[in-house]
Amino acid sequence: MRVIVALGGNALLRRGQSMNAHTQMDNVRGVVKTLADLARKHELIITHGNGPQVGMLALESPYPFDTLGAQTQGMIGYWMLQALQNALPGRQVLAMVTQTLVSAVDPAFDDPSKFVGQVYEREEAEKLAGEHGWTVKPDGRHWRRVVPSPSPQRVVETRLVRQMVREGVVVICAGGGGIPVVRDEQGRLAGVEAVIDKDLTASMLAEALDCDAFLILTDVPRVMRDFGTPRQSEIAHTTPYELRAMDFPAGSMGPKVDAVCRFVETTGDMAAIGRLDQAERILGGDAGTIVTPNARWPLTSTL
Amino acid sequence: MRVIVALGGNALLRRGQSMNAHTQMDNVRGVVKTLADLARKHELIITHGNGPQVGMLALESPYPFDTLGAQTQGMIGYWMLQALQNALPGRQVLAMVTQTLVSAVDPAFDDPSKFVGQVYEREEAEKLAGEHGWTVKPDGRHWRRVVPSPSPQRVVETRLVRQMVREGVVVICAGGGGIPVVRDEQGRLAGVEAVIDKDLTASMLAEALDCDAFLILTDVPRVMRDFGTPRQSEIAHTTPYELRAMDFPAGSMGPKVDAVCRFVETTGDMAAIGRLDQAERILGGDAGTIVTPNARWPLTSTL
Repeated sequence: MRVIVALGGNALLRRGQSMNAHTQMDNVRGVVKTLADLARKHELIITHGNGPQVGMLALESPYPFDTLGAQTQGMIGYWMLQALQNALPGRQVLAMVTQTLVSAVDPAFDDPSKFVGQVYEREEAEKLAGEHGWTVKPDGRHWRRVVPSPSPQRVVETRLVRQMVREGVVVICAGGGGIPVVRDEQGRLAGVEAVIDKDLTASMLAEALDCDAFLILTDVPRVMRDFGTPRQSEIAHTTPYELRAMDFPAGSMGPKVDAVCRFVETTGDMAAIGRLDQAERILGGDAGTIVTPNARWPLTSTL
Repeated sequence: MRVIVALGGNALLRRGQSMNAHTQMDNVRGVVKTLADLARKHELIITHGNGPQVGMLALESPYPFDTLGAQTQGMIGYWMLQALQNALPGRQVLAMVTQTLVSAVDPAFDDPSKFVGQVYEREEAEKLAGEHGWTVKPDGRHWRRVVPSPSPQRVVETRLVRQMVREGVVVICAGGGGIPVVRDEQGRLAGVEAVIDKDLTASMLAEALDCDAFLILTDVPRVMRDFGTPRQSEIAHTTPYELRAMDFPAGSMGPKVDAVCRFVETTGDMAAIGRLDQAERILGGDAGTIVTPNARWPLTSTL
């Protein structure tokens, strides 16, 4: 099987952990145990988040978000590359710098909505906005910078990723949703100040690479029906049709559910959301929330 | 021909320029005009320096040098990737995160010699050394941190680079000399606090990839004989034997001369040091300092 995995940011940095290199490399080594098991049995493409890392760089650095995203792809790509090489002796592993194309007329550019960086008092936020050309919005009782979060259209380097995967290379790419770029009127690529949802990029890349399975691996065992109510219950197996009829929190589970639904709707293949350490069992249909085109989709015989 | 290019740090940031992303991306676009011309005629591998960039990150960030090097590979790799894709429509370009293996018993680890980061007064330098485990040394009348600069042994991802180059992909790799790693007693890769000379890494990679030519492209037109004396004169064509008999400044031209000599001595192929914008003429033997195994090496007929 060809499998693509999207790793949550908390796979690299757990809540409350200090953001030093040592801690993150330790976490990566833990994550990679599971990924190496997958890579021994399947063609594997790995994408990952970069939320906490890019947030920290944005505080220290005046660089725009395309360049900061590139820095995190280098850094997290290196950690994963080395850990995978150590776990898979003799196997080729590639950490690529990749750009994600978005539309220059994406409505998100008219309505920046993704909070980035630290919180400020209103007055200071507005002063910084004037100085740096930021857009700032209230986030609770504080103010923060917001950037657009446009829809991913294509990973620019898709052809190279496909070629490498076919040759048995484990590919790490599209980190942080990919470096956001648009094409200008001359068809040239140019970076933009934006942040792309990593699960949506992974979903689109999964489709472009004809993956058999798309796994969003995080720290929750299953998606919950009626989350936060007395009736809440785990969803073991569902369809995009059923999921689309439910409500999920916009900031957390919503984009993940949207990403898996899109992949299943577009390709008719299987996607899932579940715990990283249960990845093999999820592929076997025994853990996680499995999403297939219909309820009679033949999980066992196909996988 | 298969050509490998080592770009000096000043190709990305000229002396006195401010280190913002806009300026550096502009410089990269200029550099890439020449590189794209080379790529239209030859198989091309591009390596680059990261001195000013990693120096700036080291001031802002507590991360070790392997991780900082990885950040600059992502950032500079992205800038070059995008500029090359724009200059070479339809051509595949790959920016790879790559590690460079050094020996854990390299004598450089006992005698750190490469100055990094800002200058301090002695007292503060020694305080920081105690806090962070740094080694500090006098640099003129100030003090600075020093890190080891071990000899490159192998780019860990050499096999993948070779495979990509064979398939016509323009490959950007080994940025900043590569992320420094050693193998531990179990054979596992691990990052180290070191900085590897980018020209020596490029020389070794040129050999491993069977390159026909190794070009160090910088801002000087030729290596000078008797530099800084009234007798100084440009060297147009020479041999490793002649070059090894001359003295060059350890901090600047010395490592470049060593890198080209090693490649020519080892492979019997051609290397050169010269100006970036004269790259095509250098390959034709009409510019730069051309280094060949002997003075009768048939430049015109072979190239």
